[in-house]
Amino acid sequence: MDPRAAIVEILRDSVRTLIVCHVNPDGDCLGAGLALVAALRRLGVTATMASADGVPASLSFLSGTDGVVTAVADEGNFPVAVTIECTSLDRAGRLAPAVQQARTIIAIDHHQDPPPYAHVTDWDPRAAAVGEQVADIITRLGVEIDRPIAQNLLAALVTDTGVFRYSNTTPRSLRLAATLMERGATIHEIVRAVYEDQPASSLRLLGRALAGLTLHAGGAVAATVVTQAMLAEAGARWEETSGIAAALRTITGVRLALVFEERDGSMRVSIRSRGEARADRIAQALGGGGHPAAAGADVVGAPDETVARVLALAAREVAGTGDDA
Amino acid sequence: MDPRAAIVEILRDSVRTLIVCHVNPDGDCLGAGLALVAALRRLGVTATMASADGVPASLSFLSGTDGVVTAVADEGNFPVAVTIECTSLDRAGRLAPAVQQARTIIAIDHHQDPPPYAHVTDWDPRAAAVGEQVADIITRLGVEIDRPIAQNLLAALVTDTGVFRYSNTTPRSLRLAATLMERGATIHEIVRAVYEDQPASSLRLLGRALAGLTLHAGGAVAATVVTQAMLAEAGARWEETSGIAAALRTITGVRLALVFEERDGSMRVSIRSRGEARADRIAQALGGGGHPAAAGADVVGAPDETVARVLALAAREVAGTGDDA
Repeated sequence: MDPRAAIVEILRDSVRTLIVCHVNPDGDCLGAGLALVAALRRLGVTATMASADGVPASLSFLSGTDGVVTAVADEGNFPVAVTIECTSLDRAGRLAPAVQQARTIIAIDHHQDPPPYAHVTDWDPRAAAVGEQVADIITRLGVEIDRPIAQNLLAALVTDTGVFRYSNTTPRSLRLAATLMERGATIHEIVRAVYEDQPASSLRLLGRALAGLTLHAGGAVAATVVTQAMLAEAGARWEETSGIAAALRTITGVRLALVFEERDGSMRVSIRSRGEARADRIAQALGGGGHPAAAGADVVGAPDETVARVLALAAREVAGTGDDA
Repeated sequence: MDPRAAIVEILRDSVRTLIVCHVNPDGDCLGAGLALVAALRRLGVTATMASADGVPASLSFLSGTDGVVTAVADEGNFPVAVTIECTSLDRAGRLAPAVQQARTIIAIDHHQDPPPYAHVTDWDPRAAAVGEQVADIITRLGVEIDRPIAQNLLAALVTDTGVFRYSNTTPRSLRLAATLMERGATIHEIVRAVYEDQPASSLRLLGRALAGLTLHAGGAVAATVVTQAMLAEAGARWEETSGIAAALRTITGVRLALVFEERDGSMRVSIRSRGEARADRIAQALGGGGHPAAAGADVVGAPDETVARVLALAAREVAGTGDDA
């Protein structure tokens, strides 16, 4: 039996199922998990959705988030536990013991390596989102996809593909999205809730940051400095700097985007790359970390010296990776 | 015979066809037009793609743009002319006479009202992009969609739906995109070329515009003014204002976004809406035009008075459409 068929059997026969998403949850694991919970409940299965870190505000529009728990009192009381996008068990956070005590552990994941801890694993690295895998599981369970389930699955797809613009998007993703729209889901409502609902202060801050951008290393590096004064003028908080580096990265020829935040006593550096340039290499040299495309570090020292030091590292990185961005 | 079937017959039998897109061309009319030109050439029809305003730099990646002409010397020499998204004939700009002298004028459009000037009209207001209509025409012509045609049609779809995020996106759009991907088209290459390849000057200008944004009508209207001085400081040209209104539209609660461009002797107003608020109603009151979600007008008069007048119209529009943004 293929793993997915086995999973469908286990889920259908379970009386009490725990669905767990990863720490710092995103739209894919929450959307897919909540869709699965709704489908199981329609089959009479008692299903609980758990997220160690709760639900971020931008995803509270998903259907069923009011029932998400951050901890379970009755660990050991779930015959079946399903992890969504937990590459390792510690990605479940404080919910890991509850998963571990389940008689049957099911892992649903689409990351590079299969999760090693489960009894049955639905692993599909070609899926743009686990929402694709869960959509098929729900269909195989014989549950008709209604609007709330469709919207949650579409939210999984939309958020994990950056609204279909990342290279993980496949014809299958688009056809599933079409089917989900026919069940009542709407892309623009998801986009609006997740991406187009920001305070005016964030845009004022972005504006100040972009107005002061500078180019370096022959235009391959874009940088900007955000000061406490800019924050105050915009009426913004530090959390509102998140979109600045991504905007810098869209400049023609830019392969590394750097945002310097002059915080109290240290400089926070956010690095975004495209092409072969590696953000994580620079972050590591500064004592920080991250992914090849997005990394960061906190650097103690005089702001001017930090900027000069990071620009030198960035210039070396783009010189060493001669790709055409 | 349905109009599309008639159009397919006319195109197949034509020996010499002129395809014309509208002034200030976008990705939909250029992508769809170039796809149609490529398909007709494969059938042995001499086809010429004409755009009065040429090809904007962000769309030069489309296949076949090197063959686009901005004028035709041999007006009156085209038995068949096809207009793409020209609601009225003057939307063809200086190419209008060449269209008018054709024996058969075909109009392909998806705007609110059918174009009134053509002999045969393929009008489908439910199409997210004319690219959807042209994809079907090409299929009916019996031409297999290869990678260049697929990429141009996908570019039409992607640009007219804002990468599938606008409410005009339908299941049909997504299924067509899936099919085009299977023919070799890639969404992320289009996104990168169109949206993620902008001069630093555009971001500096965007920055200045966002830094000075103001909210009105209880936060339902966001506005900003772009002056010649801001343009000069950013080293930007007027063409680089295009992303500003869309950015304003992402502010929580904003239902109308207004960008005022202080040009020589007149104020150009760009209007973007979301929800029920209608951008075109405001534009029409100012002597301009457009879609419900995106419209514009050129207003002669004192800048301050124009701003006040448009803000009053915008406040009335959001008051009259009581939706929850």
